Amino acid sequence: MIRTGFPMEGPTLGEVGELEVIRAILNAAPSTFNGDDAAVLTPAVPNSRVVVTTDMLVEGRHFTPELTTPFAVGRKAVVQNFADIEAMGARPIAAVLAFSAAPSLPLAVVSELAAGIHSMVQEYSSELVGGDVTSGGRLVISLSAVGSLGGSLPALELGRARAGQKVVAHGRIGYSAAGLALLTSGKEVPAELAELVDAYQTPALTPGRGMIARAAGATAMTDNSDGLVHDVGTIAGRSGVMVDLDGAAIAPDELLTRAGELLGVDPWSWVLAGGEDHTLLGTIEGAAPVGFRTIGTVRKGAGVLIDGSAPPYTDGWESFS
Amino acid sequence: MIRTGFPMEGPTLGEVGELEVIRAILNAAPSTFNGDDAAVLTPAVPNSRVVVTTDMLVEGRHFTPELTTPFAVGRKAVVQNFADIEAMGARPIAAVLAFSAAPSLPLAVVSELAAGIHSMVQEYSSELVGGDVTSGGRLVISLSAVGSLGGSLPALELGRARAGQKVVAHGRIGYSAAGLALLTSGKEVPAELAELVDAYQTPALTPGRGMIARAAGATAMTDNSDGLVHDVGTIAGRSGVMVDLDGAAIAPDELLTRAGELLGVDPWSWVLAGGEDHTLLGTIEGAAPVGFRTIGTVRKGAGVLIDGSAPPYTDGWESFS
Repeated sequence: MIRTGFPMEGPTLGEVGELEVIRAILNAAPSTFNGDDAAVLTPAVPNSRVVVTTDMLVEGRHFTPELTTPFAVGRKAVVQNFADIEAMGARPIAAVLAFSAAPSLPLAVVSELAAGIHSMVQEYSSELVGGDVTSGGRLVISLSAVGSLGGSLPALELGRARAGQKVVAHGRIGYSAAGLALLTSGKEVPAELAELVDAYQTPALTPGRGMIARAAGATAMTDNSDGLVHDVGTIAGRSGVMVDLDGAAIAPDELLTRAGELLGVDPWSWVLAGGEDHTLLGTIEGAAPVGFRTIGTVRKGAGVLIDGSAPPYTDGWESFS
Repeated sequence: MIRTGFPMEGPTLGEVGELEVIRAILNAAPSTFNGDDAAVLTPAVPNSRVVVTTDMLVEGRHFTPELTTPFAVGRKAVVQNFADIEAMGARPIAAVLAFSAAPSLPLAVVSELAAGIHSMVQEYSSELVGGDVTSGGRLVISLSAVGSLGGSLPALELGRARAGQKVVAHGRIGYSAAGLALLTSGKEVPAELAELVDAYQTPALTPGRGMIARAAGATAMTDNSDGLVHDVGTIAGRSGVMVDLDGAAIAPDELLTRAGELLGVDPWSWVLAGGEDHTLLGTIEGAAPVGFRTIGTVRKGAGVLIDGSAPPYTDGWESFS
């Protein structure tokens, strides 16, 4: 069953005040480390490096109450950030949440958001360790994540792809964009396509795959946030190489094909330019690590091709358009 | 000379697009660590703990273009976050910036904001190592900071004040609130009071004082963000003690007194309930560490007194009022 909508009733942030808002967050997302000026964390691995990233979600831009739930938004905010940590080959250890919201926002929205964040950080054996709440206009959620990079192997940087390597992927590609298209189509979503909607509301990323890939010899990695061609293109550009994607390996599966037929949309547009799946895209010399599949080859040259030809869809996400 | 106002001219974020916005930030705040999915940092001290905090500034709530400059807002955002790191006795090592802004915002605002951030992180031998830019309504700036806590001494937690200790402070108290009152009074600010306005626009915090205090034996610490009575009261509450402030040690100085006379305001209100100075307030057994002065005593009991009496001003900052 597809759930959408934000709670509209109950006491508001303005009615209960800042202390109660913070208490609601701590109830939904308890942490041993929360509650001081800053959180003090002991890295899981001695002498590890610290990895840090941040992502902001704005109501009406990255999510709309009609298409999702606060719980899903919380989970998505964590996945977006932790995918960036995983894409360095590191392990997410903590997140901090800053948000601004109108005083008229029901407290239940914040509680559900925090519960969503908590449920996802827990899947990573991580915690929400601090935050800042403030009054503003529309809901703005800013999550930052800290990770730990153990050992002496280099991080999975964008510029480390080399000709001759394989391009590997972990997770679905195009599902999130297809799910969004279904939700905004005005049509009723058939039960068998609910998985696509779910992928839009809460992208799925198995914890630890970035760390595994680094241990297995991966060199470059990123996550599919702006679109497959765009994101693989970033690796290609930074590494000074060309990526040739294998059309058969990334071709729309049955679910994407059926959604495309229902909406009259070419499902390749979701695969190549959709983004927001936050699944991992990397390069490696040897075999694809467990959980990854091979979707292309790194060659000398520049740009991104599919079976040697220019991709039909390339547009990525652009913030200020 | 007091500078206020945001640049109103030149190309906008919507006109130049996301890539140019990011380029402007990287030009103004260059970093070796910026530009990948996440930033990878090597802690300055082996086996150090990681300290993390976040703060959000919303246009019209935490700053207004008529009263400050983007450069000052950038510096203030860093001080707010780094003060929280210092208040644990740790050393700030990096910051990440997420912001949302209307496409109509001049790019010059962002460049100046980033330049302000850069100028302040540099004072801490730190860097702006990553970020996220997105389209939204009013300007929302979310900065998160990572610090490094070396050695085995405990962090300066709120709950570690003990009866018999001294209360010590580093930095001005009440200046920021006085500066804001001057700016919003509608009166022309005399040149000799410009220092107060400056303290509002960019709170001053000497880097390293938190680390020094921890090494010198400080136990609890926080920063003066919500108001002296409120923030010292948080230490008292968490530690299960009473704080008796020394009226003579915190009495409004000549500058605050003159501003109070000009505006017809009791300057004690700025000292006790002003906040936003982001200077350090701590407790310690022995002598005040260098840079700190003694402003009170920790006793058995509860709450905050001044020379044994209830303080006349206690209101702190409340987000959703």
